Amino acid sequence: MHIDRFPSRLLENAVNEFAKLPGIGRKSALRLVLHLLKQDLQEVEIFGNSLIQLRSEIKHCKVCHNISDTDICSICANPSRNPSIICVVENIKDVMSIENTQQFKGLYHVLGGIISPMDGIGPSDLEVDSLVTRVNEGNTEEIILALSTTMEGDTTNFFIYKKLKNTEVKISTLARGVSIGDELEYTDEVTLGRSIVNRMNFEESIIR
Amino acid sequence: MHIDRFPSRLLENAVNEFAKLPGIGRKSALRLVLHLLKQDLQEVEIFGNSLIQLRSEIKHCKVCHNISDTDICSICANPSRNPSIICVVENIKDVMSIENTQQFKGLYHVLGGIISPMDGIGPSDLEVDSLVTRVNEGNTEEIILALSTTMEGDTTNFFIYKKLKNTEVKISTLARGVSIGDELEYTDEVTLGRSIVNRMNFEESIIR
Repeated sequence: MHIDRFPSRLLENAVNEFAKLPGIGRKSALRLVLHLLKQDLQEVEIFGNSLIQLRSEIKHCKVCHNISDTDICSICANPSRNPSIICVVENIKDVMSIENTQQFKGLYHVLGGIISPMDGIGPSDLEVDSLVTRVNEGNTEEIILALSTTMEGDTTNFFIYKKLKNTEVKISTLARGVSIGDELEYTDEVTLGRSIVNRMNFEESIIR
Repeated sequence: MHIDRFPSRLLENAVNEFAKLPGIGRKSALRLVLHLLKQDLQEVEIFGNSLIQLRSEIKHCKVCHNISDTDICSICANPSRNPSIICVVENIKDVMSIENTQQFKGLYHVLGGIISPMDGIGPSDLEVDSLVTRVNEGNTEEIILALSTTMEGDTTNFFIYKKLKNTEVKISTLARGVSIGDELEYTDEVTLGRSIVNRMNFEESIIR
């Protein structure tokens, strides 16, 4: 079904707006809009206003640059977290992923992207200078670089490493190796090779 | 990735609202909301308000019950269309599909659903009475029943047929047969059997 003959300009506008979202085609957009049409006006107002309110009122934490409802986010403001360890991540999704593991009790630093010349993203577009400033304030003992294991991630890791290597701070990165639950047969060669070279003490490998 | 630890209540609200839409899970909802966060406030306001405006201002055509920006829709108000033929469809998507074929120059009647006891939809939930009223006004020569070829569609067809069989109006339905472009090998048995029984004059089968 082609959808280009709309019985209503209002309908067409709403479908066009929905179809601008990534991964939503015009047929999906029409389906979603017709679904909203069946809801109560109040429900649709809550939906539309929740998006507008999010965009207009959202803040970025002044310390870690994660998104937040307040000037300092709930993680940075939490006194039970260890402020001497900073985990550097690309975006807020990564913060949420790591938080879900419940294994990290330090703070974060959200770069807002990774260095990617193909997409025109250079170091000045990222929160690297503010990371260096945070480290220079002197309360940091360790920086964990938790970026993607891609060329862009490695480039960004190396850029940050160069900026911080003359400080006292310890710089670590996520352990690389065979995923837990993976069968060796299906593990890629590079990961498998690295995991043999960087083999670890068996006792330390036991999940506690 | 589980997503239950949101750094912001505003973000959580927006994700929850998006995830209420059919076919949008929580991961997709987060992806869409983070996309909107990157857009200008003005863009997000246009998006949100286009939905609210659609829901609050949309009308249903008083004649055919299709959705419309005006009291009488552009199809019913078009003097070049033939008002003596009414095509009965389930919903506005079907109107758009048939309009896209450019093969029908009559008017429509949108039932707003089909009889489906499983979903609690009975004849009184549909625009059947208004169809009978339209026919009784006397300007209609033919009713085309263009509902789905499902049990619910057949039930609805038969219900409408019973309501109208004592009038002068001709009642027809869409031709059933092998889809144009289909290979016989992959056509289902019921359709193929029916298309042999209801075989048509070859000259009439040629698309003009």
